[in-house]
Amino acid sequence: MRMVDIIAKKRDGGALSPEEIRFFIDGYVQGAIPDYQASALAMAIYFRDMTDAEIAELTRAMVASGETVDLSAIRGIKVDKHSTGGVGDTTTLVLAPLVASLGVPVAKMSGRGLGFTGGTLDKLESIAGFQVEQTTERFIDLVNRDKIAVIGQSSDLVPADKKLYALRDVTGSVESIPLIASSIMSKKIAAGADAIVLEVTTGRGAFMKNEKDAMRLAETMVRIGKRVGRETQAVITDMSQPLGRAIGNALEVREAIDTLKGQGPDDLRALVLALGSRMVLLAKKAETLEEAHRQLVNALDSGGAFDKFKQFIANQGGDPSVADHPEKLPQAKFQMELTAKNSGVVSEMAADEIGLAAMLLGAGRATKEERIDFAAGIVLHKKVGDPVASGESLATIHSDREKINDVIDKLYRTIKISDHAERPKLIRRIITE
Amino acid sequence: MRMVDIIAKKRDGGALSPEEIRFFIDGYVQGAIPDYQASALAMAIYFRDMTDAEIAELTRAMVASGETVDLSAIRGIKVDKHSTGGVGDTTTLVLAPLVASLGVPVAKMSGRGLGFTGGTLDKLESIAGFQVEQTTERFIDLVNRDKIAVIGQSSDLVPADKKLYALRDVTGSVESIPLIASSIMSKKIAAGADAIVLEVTTGRGAFMKNEKDAMRLAETMVRIGKRVGRETQAVITDMSQPLGRAIGNALEVREAIDTLKGQGPDDLRALVLALGSRMVLLAKKAETLEEAHRQLVNALDSGGAFDKFKQFIANQGGDPSVADHPEKLPQAKFQMELTAKNSGVVSEMAADEIGLAAMLLGAGRATKEERIDFAAGIVLHKKVGDPVASGESLATIHSDREKINDVIDKLYRTIKISDHAERPKLIRRIITE
Repeated sequence: MRMVDIIAKKRDGGALSPEEIRFFIDGYVQGAIPDYQASALAMAIYFRDMTDAEIAELTRAMVASGETVDLSAIRGIKVDKHSTGGVGDTTTLVLAPLVASLGVPVAKMSGRGLGFTGGTLDKLESIAGFQVEQTTERFIDLVNRDKIAVIGQSSDLVPADKKLYALRDVTGSVESIPLIASSIMSKKIAAGADAIVLEVTTGRGAFMKNEKDAMRLAETMVRIGKRVGRETQAVITDMSQPLGRAIGNALEVREAIDTLKGQGPDDLRALVLALGSRMVLLAKKAETLEEAHRQLVNALDSGGAFDKFKQFIANQGGDPSVADHPEKLPQAKFQMELTAKNSGVVSEMAADEIGLAAMLLGAGRATKEERIDFAAGIVLHKKVGDPVASGESLATIHSDREKINDVIDKLYRTIKISDHAERPKLIRRIITE
Repeated sequence: MRMVDIIAKKRDGGALSPEEIRFFIDGYVQGAIPDYQASALAMAIYFRDMTDAEIAELTRAMVASGETVDLSAIRGIKVDKHSTGGVGDTTTLVLAPLVASLGVPVAKMSGRGLGFTGGTLDKLESIAGFQVEQTTERFIDLVNRDKIAVIGQSSDLVPADKKLYALRDVTGSVESIPLIASSIMSKKIAAGADAIVLEVTTGRGAFMKNEKDAMRLAETMVRIGKRVGRETQAVITDMSQPLGRAIGNALEVREAIDTLKGQGPDDLRALVLALGSRMVLLAKKAETLEEAHRQLVNALDSGGAFDKFKQFIANQGGDPSVADHPEKLPQAKFQMELTAKNSGVVSEMAADEIGLAAMLLGAGRATKEERIDFAAGIVLHKKVGDPVASGESLATIHSDREKINDVIDKLYRTIKISDHAERPKLIRRIITE
């Protein structure tokens, strides 16, 4: 078998055989196949796409390229959740304790990632003392005992994805549905998921800029899940504006706490219930979606989810009193109001631009080496579709910097006020098969 | 400027600016742009094509990537000829002395190349004593004095093409019209051509398997020639079966000598006249194509072209007596006849398969290191459309090997005899603008 023939076959629109796919992945990870052939194949895949059978095999080959996590010692069906990312995406912080409070085992491995704000790990680390490093033994014990633990992802999982993603990133083939789908699914499977709930975001703050591509990606991953024996469902959500109101690490923890208390933003609560009810269903802790939804609302109203959050924080060395006293979370020196220059209805709040503004404040990192300012960020008081009067605050900017003209200018350029605007629909579609 | 943005632009169907094209070629030759980005761009170009303006700029940038040959010391218009290659392609050996005999300066730099038989240099070296290495001074002197010299191509010409071609060869983007066109044209221009006549072959023994692709390539190169100020014409020829009758180095030299004496195969003679008349016209040695054609026929009939061949061989150290005594050329130990197993009309003689049979005999090389057996090869006695009687010889096989069952089997599998077959039209189209 020769790699150049595999490239030519894909280039000409052929479907690669399982042997060809394994030859590529194994050879690439072992260094026998050079980057220049892998990048050419990735570009050919970009143009020619892959069949479901090819993507499933690619996913399997990527899983097999490295270590896999054995979660069999954890009782129950392990349902993992993945989001294709966005701005102000506080979902996991709420979802994990919420579904755990219903007895669904949440054995979550999260990343830090680069981007507008930190990843779930960074957000959790804004809570004093919280430890994302745990031994596998303790991780499993915690999940068996209290149904929840969140730790850092092992760097030995799916080395093929790591190498291939880094290559695609500099060779223009990131935006390929089969490559994105296999990348996401391989990581979830290697991390031990029995079933998967996906949040596929769409809009300016998302990886998938339009709903059509988001649909294709979601449908592809749901079908791949079936092929590889992991039941998968996907929720397509709007990320044209940030999710919730908080953008920034400690700010999002506070928002998560609010939501767990039943006081969070409507959109975040709605999303958490949509994703959570599917997790509860796939974990077989409810017979129907309606029943799962009812149980989750009850867990929020009764304080069960909130208590689970405190237990989770304490279990991993964090200070659980932040739940009742969120003012203990890192606070920025300055809080500045961004006031509306005229009256009307907020008609645009481009999620990516607001995310970049948060990054300018220090809430996110552009390179692995950068440190995050946990306290920095933005809290929106208005969202698209909200009426606003001239002089009213659109957002509060949290920063240790006193001079933030760059951020203010950016936000004014980004937030548009018009005569009329519709509230965007948050949950666009549900893909279950 | 970032290479990844250039790749993405082309991937999305954009036209690259001259600055972007130069950034790519310069960076790639200097090593600042890695192979894995170059291969991804090449694949994107394969799928998205390039505008004429892009291909012209790519050609210029490739020429500028290395040395160029200054032929300004040679008087007259230097018309170069290039063939996209084939099997039994004896054209240059006839064409060069033929047009030189009419006063057209032929300052030719040729390659060896890999393939079914050797390149023009290898064929010339089958003449005892012939020297392809000449100083530039002598090269220019020879052309000024006698209008003809053929030397090896400098390895410093168009390093961008050398590097990019080697990469495309292992990454599945060889078959890209803009990349092929810029590769060919850049080498001709760097070698000092004022005008260019192209033979674009099509069919099983050619690079372009179908006439549509050959047309596109020819039209592209003719248009690029205009853009870069080198008048260019192209002749599209059939390479479904070998050209002429001889396949093999010394065998082709002998066929060239026959043709220069007016005794060669009809198809080779017709092709040489078609290409040659365009060279004479572009060199402004005739007013019309008809006049050029007449002059060439006269040079063949009068012996002028034949004499020029002898002078050319002698000038470069070769033994000119081979022209009158071709039996002095290297001869194989064995000559074996391949006889027809049944009667009918030859209906197929796939050029590529017959080329491979010649290679099995040692007439070509698969790697740079292999040595060529100058004497080995095949002489066809029948071509497609010729009637044949059972037991009649289809071809003579020249080899130092006595056991050549592999070659015989291959030839029998390749040569098909049916009830009826048309002679393929050799010259398919002429592209002049």
